[in-house]
Amino acid sequence: MLYSTDQLIQQINQKIEEINFAQSPCELYEPIKYSLSLGGKRIRPLLSLMACNLFSDETEAAILPAIGLEIFHNFTLLHDDLMDKADVRRGHSTVHKKWSANTAILSGDAMQIMAYQFISQTPSNNLSEVLNLFSKTALEVCEGQQYDMDFEKRNDVNESEYIEMIRLKTAVLLACALKTGAIIGGAAERDAELLYTFGEKIGLAFQLKDDLLDTFGDELTFGKAIGGDIVCNKKTYLLINAIRLSTDEEKREINNWLHLEKFDKKKKIEAITSIYINKEIKKLCEDKINQFYQEAIDALYAIDVNVMQKSELITFSEKLMYRQS
Amino acid sequence: MLYSTDQLIQQINQKIEEINFAQSPCELYEPIKYSLSLGGKRIRPLLSLMACNLFSDETEAAILPAIGLEIFHNFTLLHDDLMDKADVRRGHSTVHKKWSANTAILSGDAMQIMAYQFISQTPSNNLSEVLNLFSKTALEVCEGQQYDMDFEKRNDVNESEYIEMIRLKTAVLLACALKTGAIIGGAAERDAELLYTFGEKIGLAFQLKDDLLDTFGDELTFGKAIGGDIVCNKKTYLLINAIRLSTDEEKREINNWLHLEKFDKKKKIEAITSIYINKEIKKLCEDKINQFYQEAIDALYAIDVNVMQKSELITFSEKLMYRQS
Repeated sequence: MLYSTDQLIQQINQKIEEINFAQSPCELYEPIKYSLSLGGKRIRPLLSLMACNLFSDETEAAILPAIGLEIFHNFTLLHDDLMDKADVRRGHSTVHKKWSANTAILSGDAMQIMAYQFISQTPSNNLSEVLNLFSKTALEVCEGQQYDMDFEKRNDVNESEYIEMIRLKTAVLLACALKTGAIIGGAAERDAELLYTFGEKIGLAFQLKDDLLDTFGDELTFGKAIGGDIVCNKKTYLLINAIRLSTDEEKREINNWLHLEKFDKKKKIEAITSIYINKEIKKLCEDKINQFYQEAIDALYAIDVNVMQKSELITFSEKLMYRQS
Repeated sequence: MLYSTDQLIQQINQKIEEINFAQSPCELYEPIKYSLSLGGKRIRPLLSLMACNLFSDETEAAILPAIGLEIFHNFTLLHDDLMDKADVRRGHSTVHKKWSANTAILSGDAMQIMAYQFISQTPSNNLSEVLNLFSKTALEVCEGQQYDMDFEKRNDVNESEYIEMIRLKTAVLLACALKTGAIIGGAAERDAELLYTFGEKIGLAFQLKDDLLDTFGDELTFGKAIGGDIVCNKKTYLLINAIRLSTDEEKREINNWLHLEKFDKKKKIEAITSIYINKEIKKLCEDKINQFYQEAIDALYAIDVNVMQKSELITFSEKLMYRQS
């Protein structure tokens, strides 16, 4: 049977609730429980199960590895928040704020091991392939985070470097989730690879959409303050292209804002946003999102499965693209 | 053939040198190379290969998982040094000192993934068993580190809690290394389990020997300052038992030293050491070491393999026991 997105999300959340944590030492396990209980969209395990369901009537065999990917994703958020000194995640204190930096380090490490414990429960005929794909992906996610931190110190990041960074930091894990589900569902190699491509492209579109919403989103629906990326000089797709397309005078203005240590946040956001508007950067970004989205959909259509089976994945992709938060 | 310890160490170091690191981002991979190049005794992979060699003429199949355990061990040192704010390891700057805390967090995370990549190269018929044993062990090592940090804040740690902490933090990884080698070498389940017990007991004896040398070692051969544990109030086997066996007056003296914020290091070391001597704590610790050592050797002898085959493991264990550094 073809499960609906809601049914799959329910399966995922139930399995997460059923995780049997050791009681002690509680300072190791409490932050892991906390981190997994904060919710989130469960996109990665959902994509795994949807991909599995394309090729198999049953998604049971994919559920534990799918949960492993969700645990890994939450582990990366936990350590990234510590490295980025972020105090809030999903409206709650981050682990290093609620406990301590050391707790965040160690419970994160334990979480990564738990991710592997779940992924290791892949059926044995697929275990080696799934495991190798996951490890390769996990290392790429670390590389992406390293590039992201490196870029903070640089002012000459170009578009292709930026795309590669978000590919590593965000897109490959979505791709891995889809391919993992496909492998466990019994997909042919070509189809599993097409799902990987679909995930990679959707991931790129997803992250660019995030960049766009951070500047051009609606504060009420977006759920966090607009302009955060501008305030902290994040080298997003928008900023990189604004600099590239600017006149010398505009470049000076941007550089001026980038180097000011004290400034009125609202004025900085207005000034940079107005350059984005003058340079039609919003349109440029939307075009790029649409390009990646189209490439994703092309890969999805090329998969050798009845198009009706793909309907849930198509609807889900559309939602990711047209979301306002 | 039965390989000598030296031959196995050479195989291990050669494989470590051959590790093919990605070139970029260098701030992610350089600290990993650095950490693995600082040497160390390579005890864990050595034990894996020796255990494998008990049951098989060839150790080739165990070498990559064995390296995985060494990478994991070095990862734990990297993150522990960050959490403990230790500046020097094996005579060199620790990663967080040489680079930064963020670099230590992220390159440590990547190192743990690399450990799994190596362990995942276990022959497929043993993969699931080896992987599950490793993940269980890795989680226990985190638990041990958490207890170690918890104990710093407590003054009522008892002997059995302490033994359990060092079992988790140190012994289970040695036990896991031995059992992993045994599984890959084709050992019967009972023999693999006996090697696990051997490793656990040798690990406990090894850590107690460390405690002993830290107070009663010879500065020249020990390689680091004597009395470090006393200076920083570490709740070692020695201190826990000294408190347990003390008169009220001695307890007051110990407590006084534990709570002094400013003190003459040499005087504190002398005072506490003299209580250890009065209470015959050295003898108590040596007896405990010998008890664990005997339990280890009993397990080793019970393994269903010609005693000649065990000679390298016996010699190696004796060296660990009678070492002065």
